Order: sequence, then structure tokens, then C-alpha cells
Amino acid sequence: MIELYHCVSARSLRPLWMLEELGLTYRLHMLPFPPRVQARTFLQDNPLGTVPLLVDGATRMTESAAMCDYLVRRSGNTTLQVREQEADFGAYLNWLHMSDATLTFPQTLVLRYRHFEPPERQQPQVAEDYARWFLARLRAVEAALGHAPFLCAGRFTAADVAVGYALLLGQHLGLADHYPPAVQAYWADLQARPAYQRSLQIQQEAAQAQGVDPTPAPDLR
Amino acid sequence: MIELYHCVSARSLRPLWMLEELGLTYRLHMLPFPPRVQARTFLQDNPLGTVPLLVDGATRMTESAAMCDYLVRRSGNTTLQVREQEADFGAYLNWLHMSDATLTFPQTLVLRYRHFEPPERQQPQVAEDYARWFLARLRAVEAALGHAPFLCAGRFTAADVAVGYALLLGQHLGLADHYPPAVQAYWADLQARPAYQRSLQIQQEAAQAQGVDPTPAPDLR
Repeated sequence: MIELYHCVSARSLRPLWMLEELGLTYRLHMLPFPPRVQARTFLQDNPLGTVPLLVDGATRMTESAAMCDYLVRRSGNTTLQVREQEADFGAYLNWLHMSDATLTFPQTLVLRYRHFEPPERQQPQVAEDYARWFLARLRAVEAALGHAPFLCAGRFTAADVAVGYALLLGQHLGLADHYPPAVQAYWADLQARPAYQRSLQIQQEAAQAQGVDPTPAPDLR
Repeated sequence: MIELYHCVSARSLRPLWMLEELGLTYRLHMLPFPPRVQARTFLQDNPLGTVPLLVDGATRMTESAAMCDYLVRRSGNTTLQVREQEADFGAYLNWLHMSDATLTFPQTLVLRYRHFEPPERQQPQVAEDYARWFLARLRAVEAALGHAPFLCAGRFTAADVAVGYALLLGQHLGLADHYPPAVQAYWADLQARPAYQRSLQIQQEAAQAQGVDPTPAPDLR
């Protein structure tokens, strides 16, 4: 049984959404945010104190984009992954990595220095620098969508789940109005997917059932 | 023929080192740093203006950790990659992603706000926050090295190349004295690898031959 440790609308939504796309069975553990402070026993499960944590037998993972790759390959599903023999294999790997290293990390600077730090430690210049940095990198997404409705291989894949989460985070941060029109349309299509909608509903229900505040984490409201 | 666009000791060292580990044939294009400013024609090759850029026929990639995965799988090499059937497959994917998203991006904040921005835009607090953040995440590396001389699968893999680069960057930033002893010993072992040493020598020789300043990029000195 796959176990996923998750905070509402945090990066752990990537593997949750992926699990729903794949129809796999899993157990969802909701944690208050930030778990490092609000759920200190979690440090026994993940000494870094970060979400997501995914446990699958002896496998333990902490990187949300890596989990998308792992889950789709573990499942044997051949449409949601791009295989080595396909022309877009390199592009697919590139999107999986870009989704977090290039499209999510800069947004965590906006979160931290505009919303999360106490007023005396906020850094408006840094938040502005990295909001701009993120939006500039979205040009790569826009360029890919000039050719096709999805990022690579001409179909919906794990790469779209991974990048889709970065677009959700930008929306929470109030940046979605600055997305290029093609990116806005793509993001609307992703949000219409039944598995995406289920993942949002499941996290709400699980939070309520497990006694965790079901509103998005304080820095994601 | 694989083409790699590279700045001295930038993240593009990951695929360069990987190419040397695999013994593949490639063409190395050295660029002055930052290429977005110093080599504006590069924007025709990569509109983001970032290094690395790897071109392999119709495949174009910009994420250095994804390139490690791509090159090793393209080569068919079975010891430098960890395959789906192996127990450490999930851990391997996790290290590849962690190497950049978790262990390199925070260091770019130190680079930017301690070294690269003009004095009036430097942010000592942010540089300190993310130096600390990076060193805290190294606990995961330290924990893995408690069991084995390499990160996963009991052997040297692409994950060690990807994480090794993050340790080089930390060394350039003056953070290596703070590495836990096990991480220092591991990093010393990685630096002793012939392919790593060749990659350093090759970038120097190529820079000189191509008329590019062979010292590490200004923010990596």
C-alpha cells in the first residue's frame, strides 16, 4: 500500500493527482502546515520535515516531481509516461525536472518573503525578483503549447501533472493573471480533468476526517 | 552528435561529467557568463538564455539533472542508471530531482544576493537563510552515506554526478567546511574520479581554444 503524506494544496498535490490519474490504491495522511512545527512526530517519518513523503514498501521519496515519474513507471501505464523509444523522451524528462527546479522553487521565494515571514523579515525585492523570474520561465511552457495541447508527446502525461501544479501555485500567489493566454487556456483544461478535481475533493474530505484545517496551507491561501 | 552549451563550472558541468563517465562523443560549446548578456546570439539556440543546453538531434534539453538521466538511459549503460526492477529505483529518481530542486536552487540565492547583485541590491539575510537551508538538506545526503559509499544502489550512479555538482557549487561558495565529515569524504572520493577530473580539464582547454575566459563564472570564483 502506497502511503502519501500531504498538506492541503502543497507540492504533495502532484503525487496525489498522479495517483488519481493512475487509479492506484493509496492511504493519504493529512498534516497541518508546516508539519515541521505543527506535527513534530512527522520528523520520525521524514527527518527533513518536508512534504510530500511517499512510502511504498522500502521506497521512501521526498521529491514531488520524482514521484510523478516513479508512480507512472511503477504502474506500467504507457500513455502517461513517455518511453525511451519515443521522440519526446528527452523533452518529457526535461519538463518533469523543470516543473519543480525551475517553475516551483522561485515561487517559494515569493511565498516566503511576501507571505510567510514575519513583517520585519519580509523582502519585497526578493519576492518581486522571483515572481518575475518564474513568469519569464513560463515562456518555455508557452512555446511548447504553440505546437500542441500538451507539453510533449502530443498527449497528456505526467509532465503535465508536474507543471500543472506549478501553475496552481502561481494562481494561489496571484500570478495567474500574468500567464500568457495559451498558458491560461492550458491551465483551464488541466483543471477540468476529473482526476484533478477528485484530488482537490479528496484532500478536503481527508483533512476534515483527520482533524486538519482543510483550508490551503497559510502560505497558499 | 550531442552538442552541449556550457559555462565554466556552471550546472552544465553535470552533463559534461556524465558524458565523460559514459565515454560518449560530443561537441562542447563554451559560453562566457552570463550568456544571456555576454553571448546574446545564444538566445537563438535557447530563448531562456540559460545553460546548460543539450541538443541531440531533435531533442533539446535545459535541465542539467534531467540530462544525467537522459544520457545514461540513451547510452543503455546499466550500472550508472538504476533500473525499475531494482530496489533503489525510487531513491535514485529522488536523488536526481533533489540534486537540483533541493540542493542547487537554494545555493543560487546565495550566489545572487551575496556575490552577483550590485551592492545596493545584495541581501545578506536571504543569502544566509538559503546557505543554512542548503546545509540542513545535506542531512539527507549524510544519512544515505551512513549505509554505503554512494547515494543509492550500492554503486556509483548518475545520482552521484547530479548531487556531486551541488557539492562543488557549495565548495565554490565557501560552504564546504560546513559539510558533515561523511559528506566531505564522499565529495573527496567523487573528485578523485578520472571522468570528473577530465571534465574539469576539458572545460579549461575548450574555453582557451574558443576564446572564453577559462576562470569559473564570476559568481563561481
